[in-house]
Amino acid sequence: MRYGVILAGGGGTRLWPASRRARPKPLLPLAPGGATLIAATLRRAERAAGPTLVVTAAEMEPAVRAELGSDAWILAEPVGRNTAAAVGLAAVALMARDPDAVMAVFPADHHIADEDAFTAVVARALAAAESSRAIVSIGVVPTRPEPGFGYIELGEELGPGLRAVRRFVEKPDAAAALSMVAAGGHLWNAGIFACPAERMLEEIEQHLPDTGRALSEIAAALAAGGEEAAAARAAELYPALPAISIDHGVLEKAGDLLCVPGELGWNDVGAWSALAEIEPADPDGNVRLAEGALVDARGNIVLADPGRVVALVGVEGLVVVQAGDAVLVVPRARAQEVRAAVAALEAAGLDRYL
Amino acid sequence: MRYGVILAGGGGTRLWPASRRARPKPLLPLAPGGATLIAATLRRAERAAGPTLVVTAAEMEPAVRAELGSDAWILAEPVGRNTAAAVGLAAVALMARDPDAVMAVFPADHHIADEDAFTAVVARALAAAESSRAIVSIGVVPTRPEPGFGYIELGEELGPGLRAVRRFVEKPDAAAALSMVAAGGHLWNAGIFACPAERMLEEIEQHLPDTGRALSEIAAALAAGGEEAAAARAAELYPALPAISIDHGVLEKAGDLLCVPGELGWNDVGAWSALAEIEPADPDGNVRLAEGALVDARGNIVLADPGRVVALVGVEGLVVVQAGDAVLVVPRARAQEVRAAVAALEAAGLDRYL
Repeated sequence: MRYGVILAGGGGTRLWPASRRARPKPLLPLAPGGATLIAATLRRAERAAGPTLVVTAAEMEPAVRAELGSDAWILAEPVGRNTAAAVGLAAVALMARDPDAVMAVFPADHHIADEDAFTAVVARALAAAESSRAIVSIGVVPTRPEPGFGYIELGEELGPGLRAVRRFVEKPDAAAALSMVAAGGHLWNAGIFACPAERMLEEIEQHLPDTGRALSEIAAALAAGGEEAAAARAAELYPALPAISIDHGVLEKAGDLLCVPGELGWNDVGAWSALAEIEPADPDGNVRLAEGALVDARGNIVLADPGRVVALVGVEGLVVVQAGDAVLVVPRARAQEVRAAVAALEAAGLDRYL
Repeated sequence: MRYGVILAGGGGTRLWPASRRARPKPLLPLAPGGATLIAATLRRAERAAGPTLVVTAAEMEPAVRAELGSDAWILAEPVGRNTAAAVGLAAVALMARDPDAVMAVFPADHHIADEDAFTAVVARALAAAESSRAIVSIGVVPTRPEPGFGYIELGEELGPGLRAVRRFVEKPDAAAALSMVAAGGHLWNAGIFACPAERMLEEIEQHLPDTGRALSEIAAALAAGGEEAAAARAAELYPALPAISIDHGVLEKAGDLLCVPGELGWNDVGAWSALAEIEPADPDGNVRLAEGALVDARGNIVLADPGRVVALVGVEGLVVVQAGDAVLVVPRARAQEVRAAVAALEAAGLDRYL
């Protein structure tokens, strides 16, 4: 049977001050209509894949549960060890329920504009994973030569909407990104893929043997003693696991990878400037997610908590974010540099605002 | 005997969002060391003039009393009717205590950098008011051709540091301001003046006869029934009084005005840009009255409530103010236009933020 798996880790420094240690990016209400990214992801995943398991870290679990409701299917890792361990733990949980489980894995904090296309592409990837027992990545057709993303270089066509993967390309420099996008045949790696749970565990055993052994022990504890025993064993084993991503640890090393290309209106909401791509603007080009007054202000992105007001006079191309006890002002073109502000706050001993 | 009188009206729209209807400009902690402007003014006035009466509107009285302490000498007008009525009411109160009272009148919301010079100049003005029974304005030697202020055109020299006043000049246009400052002999009208209380009441009777009559009735009630009777009479008479400033209503019309020039480091804190004139800047030219991180940010003015943080990345010459539930961003050079934002909020039905 088909399942969704959502990877809800922390992070999102570039979306400070909305994103905090206590409220990381998946919990931000940046999806259309004011939904959180994780709630929108869960809704999409259930539609495209089926029953969906959310994997998160123990420290985030209460907030995730509060957001998704008490009947959500949530699995908490004792500590975060990046996505390879999280995908493996999800595969263990799915296998215990259904040895033939095929899973579609989704990051919890992205935006998809074209949900019908998304549903169709995910279904195609799941079908390919079922029929060929392969790992099937979803590749996003690039809309710009973005150096900030990983790329998938496509190989031969294997069927309608199904390609072989020649290789993964790490975040390229600007020139390499430009030539890849110009040449075609290179898609963005959106971190979404389908795979039989059993195959995934085999790949982890082969490429990340320490992680594989730990997952076997957790699976054994789950079979023998149920969820509580599995959680206790995970708490013992997790701290020593390598923190490595599923891309670096497995997908880049696995053989016979497949890819389903898609035009999904995908956006990783990687920085505040992304809001201009996913939210409508007013006639002056301002994206407003705040009450307030904009006087002779153009092309700004404005965000504030409910019950707060932001006034801009005579400014252009700024990101202005009020969230909780903090305010951020940065030009849209430099939105990536919010990380520098976060680092400066940390260096100044102002961690309480992070 | 000499007395100080502080006029603590409301207002200060250009200092929104710190300045609100419920917390107008005199109550903002913008004096050095984080004192409120009114507390700093009271301290200066007591030093320069003597016992000091604070005149404020009834709606502001609780906040003013909370700020200045229970033993402060405060007189509340039932409603605000601009400064002519306030100065007149102060004169009535002083006369009842001391028929020979000479008062020095100060706006409650200005900044003085050179307090020793201020004390000396105020003492000189009070002495001249005592000896000549005149209204003696303090004129501030201009440091720039500012069109936003009223000017005092000086006449003949009457003694050391004492000049006749030829006329008052309303806020000039930029060209007129430039030629006045270039020509010399024109000082800024800072709204500070000394005068015998009795002489002030005579001038009001002559130039603002309605106000003069009302003040006489309030004085009679005070003599017959004390402060409570006077307050009751004022509550009856005030609503019908003309709302006119002491400058327009009296000083511009009175004869034989005198002026004591001074270089006081005077600043009317008329807009956020003024903070750059009264507060020290960091090596990058940023004036910081807020916790936070400034990354590649130059020449900004940053203000926030205690317990709030502001981060700026890659911006220059901005005013960024967080106060209560509101945030303002405006270029320093356009700080006067905050009024437009306030008007826009009002027009949008967002009065609750004003």
